[in-house]
Formats: sequence, structure tokens, C-alpha cells
Amino acid sequence: MLYLIGLGLGDAKDITVKGLEVIKQCHKVYLEAYTSMLTVGKEVLEEFYGRELILADRETVEQEADNILKDADLFDVAFLVVGDPFGATTHSDLVLRAVKLGIPYRVIHNASIMNAVGCCGLQLYNFGETVSVVFWTDTWKPESFFDKIGKNRQNGMHTLCLLDIKVKEQNLENLMKGKKIYEPPRYMSVNQAAEQLLAIVQNRRLQGEEPEITEDTICVGLARVGATDQKIASGTLQELSTVELGGPLHSMIITGAMHPLEIEMLKLFAVDKLSFENKMCQRNT
Amino acid sequence: MLYLIGLGLGDAKDITVKGLEVIKQCHKVYLEAYTSMLTVGKEVLEEFYGRELILADRETVEQEADNILKDADLFDVAFLVVGDPFGATTHSDLVLRAVKLGIPYRVIHNASIMNAVGCCGLQLYNFGETVSVVFWTDTWKPESFFDKIGKNRQNGMHTLCLLDIKVKEQNLENLMKGKKIYEPPRYMSVNQAAEQLLAIVQNRRLQGEEPEITEDTICVGLARVGATDQKIASGTLQELSTVELGGPLHSMIITGAMHPLEIEMLKLFAVDKLSFENKMCQRNT
Repeated sequence: MLYLIGLGLGDAKDITVKGLEVIKQCHKVYLEAYTSMLTVGKEVLEEFYGRELILADRETVEQEADNILKDADLFDVAFLVVGDPFGATTHSDLVLRAVKLGIPYRVIHNASIMNAVGCCGLQLYNFGETVSVVFWTDTWKPESFFDKIGKNRQNGMHTLCLLDIKVKEQNLENLMKGKKIYEPPRYMSVNQAAEQLLAIVQNRRLQGEEPEITEDTICVGLARVGATDQKIASGTLQELSTVELGGPLHSMIITGAMHPLEIEMLKLFAVDKLSFENKMCQRNT
Repeated sequence: MLYLIGLGLGDAKDITVKGLEVIKQCHKVYLEAYTSMLTVGKEVLEEFYGRELILADRETVEQEADNILKDADLFDVAFLVVGDPFGATTHSDLVLRAVKLGIPYRVIHNASIMNAVGCCGLQLYNFGETVSVVFWTDTWKPESFFDKIGKNRQNGMHTLCLLDIKVKEQNLENLMKGKKIYEPPRYMSVNQAAEQLLAIVQNRRLQGEEPEITEDTICVGLARVGATDQKIASGTLQELSTVELGGPLHSMIITGAMHPLEIEMLKLFAVDKLSFENKMCQRNT
């Protein structure tokens, strides 16, 4: 049996009781380690579970998938995923391979950023399409997510922005030389995402457009959701470009139309309460 | 301290290790019992937690909120919610009251139907606005959710339909007489939701419209997501109006544009594999 087990979002204890029981009884336990992270590392998880974890990173995922399934045909195998196994990242590929090989699978769900963002008070059923914001390079500055956010706003919907993660990336030189030397991991901050959005706003104006999102659009920054030291900050896009939220992981929301209860909740997290209230008054006039 | 704790979706063991620890240490533990349900009842939860639970139902929620907060000012109090505290239902009101009274709060997240539906293989970031489908009465047959689904489809997005729950409802006679006699609880099935949708399709045609959704639109029915006996069925809206999924809770998805990997996953759950493959071929021609 192949178990896909969500670890939730905070630390080792965010696993479910059911998930922990399954891990303890499995023959092998793999940890997916390239699409997200907890606030604790592999060693802490190993100590808490009382089990050795095998890292399944992106580089070797094809090979690991075969290994995982080879084992799961004979024994119980657990594949651990930060958040929910079918949350921000889906592991459909692994499931489809298992089914083709006739290996039964089971999913043990947990919180993912896709539902836990509700903690800021914006209602999940008012969210439109989720977008990903990737790190820009000198030569590659995609803007397509901006148009998706604009479309959501036109429909009155909020947009969850998942911010880029770069783990085990090689620089161009090492890549060309085939050297397996990796850059330090990078996690996009709310500041960086806000700056990229502000740059697009400027670009659009230069092109004669009146962008759907401006410096004054109310946004929400979230850091380490589910952890004891989680931080939430609401304010204008401009304000979020400088707000201090601490270490990764960060996410960001661009608001659409807001219900009074949603506004009340966001006020709790306002970077600048007076500025926030002024903005809300302007919306209503 | 007020703790809002998600219970997840299956049974007692779907609570997180962290959530269980907090429950065991809290002075009082309330169970929100009107917006969702697990596959097990209050007594099973009480035995598993080793704690007495106080039901907080909709009828007395105003009064209960005051009681909950009065206690939380002095002791640690837990408020348990099926799914995630900020999932399909938000408990912003309780949080706002707590903050106004200067009572600190903490959220312990868990899976909610809003992210766990990913288990059918449709990717969460391809979902548009979530809609609620309510039980029709002889005199009240709202259709507004149909237009929201249509809008999502036009944008290529899937729609999660949360199906109605009627718990502790009085009939008109008892309501008028002020008798606190309640009807048996009702949980909308995928069959019922599909039938209502089919009725709207017919209505729209009678009005000369060409509806965005038809009898042949590919949908997904989900029952008891997260439980050992969960069921997923994919097929046309017509097929889902008769598919047998067993007991509550049910949810339904109306698909939008689909990625090949999403189609592969839905094929695993097809009510009629041949019909499903034919439909997919027609889409691609």
C-alpha cells in the first residue's frame, strides 16, 4: 500500500494522529522535499516520528518514484508531503503510476496553504484562480499572473499568490559544466512579490494601460502560516513592499471585493490602521 | 486563550497531534455542530479525546459565543470545527469578538473540503469561485449558483459545489407555533444536486438560452472525503444524477477546461469508462 500523507504547515506536531500511526507502521518513509517546507527540518521530523526519512528531491524524483513504487508493491510505504498531498502541488503522477502497477494507495489529508490562508479572514469561497509568482531574472520577467489577478478582481474575487521556491538550483556556469554544485535555497518574500507587482503596474502605465491593480490595492502578506510565530500583514501593495514578515514561507493575497466582516478581520492585521481605514472609506464613496 | 481547532474530515484520528494535545489541556472544549459532520459522532470523539464536549449548535450560537469567550478570558478553551476553522465556514465572528475583549486566540489548521477535493486529481489552482447548492422548496428554487458555475467554465475553471446541510430545522407549523420540534437532519446528495442542475438546464432552454452546462458536462461526485470508505465518481451530469455514493457528506465538482493529467486522474473514477473516454474524445475534436 502507498500512503500519501500530508504534514500540514507548521512543525512536526501538525501531522494528524492517523498520519503518525501510519508512518510508525510503514516499511519505508519518503519525504518530498522540493515544493514546500515546514519550520523544522528532516532531523526533527525523524526524531518525532521515531523513523528514518528518505529524502525524495526533484532531481531524483523520477528514479525515486520507481523505488517508492517498487517498495509499495511489497510493503506499506509512506510518501510525506508538506501541506496536503493534493494541495498547492499535486502528486497525481505518483498516484497514476501506482494504479497502473496495481498498487493500492490511500491519502491522509492535512491543511494546505490553499485553505489555511482563510486565517486572515478573507473567505475561501471568494477566491478566484490561484496564481504562482516566479522569481524574475535579468532576461525573463513574466507578467501573465498579473492578468489573472486582474481578471479575478474584475469578478470581485481575491487571488492567492503562491511565491516561488528555488531549492537545489544550479547556476548557469555549473549547469553548463555539469557540476552538481547548488545555489543556496531561495524563498520569495512578500516584499519581493510586491516589488515585482509594482514594477508591472509601472510597465502597464508606460504602455498606456490603466492597470486593474495599483499601489493602493489592499493586499495581505502571510508568513509561516500555522506556525507559532506566523505573521499576517494587510495593507496597500506599496506598504507590503516594505513590511517585515521574517523568514519563509511567505504567501500573498490580492483582495477583490470585500464583505464588511472580511474588512473587520483584515483591520486586525493592518500595517497602518489609519491608512487602512482611510482606504476602506474611499472604497465606499 | 481561545483555540480554534480543525478536526479534519474523516474520523476522530484526523485531528492533528498538536490539536489533540491542546484539547487535553483545555479547561472546556466546545464542538461546533451545525455546518459539517465527521463520520463519527460526539460520543466517539469524547472517548478518543478523553474529554467531555459541549455542543455549540446554531440555535444557541449567540449565547454560546458569549459563554465560550467568558471562559476563554480565564482559562484555555477549545472550539472544535469539522474541517478547518477557516475552511468552508469561517468563524471570523468569534475571532473578532475575542479580539475586542482582549482575549488571545490561536488557530490549529486541518484539511477542509476546500483543499481535500484535490484527491480527485483536479488541480486546486484551476478552481474558480466556490458555490453553495441549497435544497429547493416548492416555492424557492434559486438558480444563481448556476450562473457562477457558467462564469467559471467560461474562464476554464472548475467549480466546487458545497451541498446543503439542514440540521435542527423546524417545519413551518412548528415554527409558527413556537414548538421546538426539529425535522430529521438532511444532507444533500450528489444525485439531488445533479437533479437540480439538470432542472435548471431545462429551464434555461425553455427560456431560449443555450446553457453553459448541459447533461453531458463532466462532473465529479465525492462522498465522505478523507474517510476509509470515501467514494469518488466522475461522469456526465446526467450520470451523476443516478450514481450511488452512499451516506453523507457529499460534494460535487463541475469541471472546466482540463489538463491531460487531470483527465487521466478522473478516468480512474469514471462511472462508465467507455462513455468517459468518448466524451473526452469529443472535447478534443
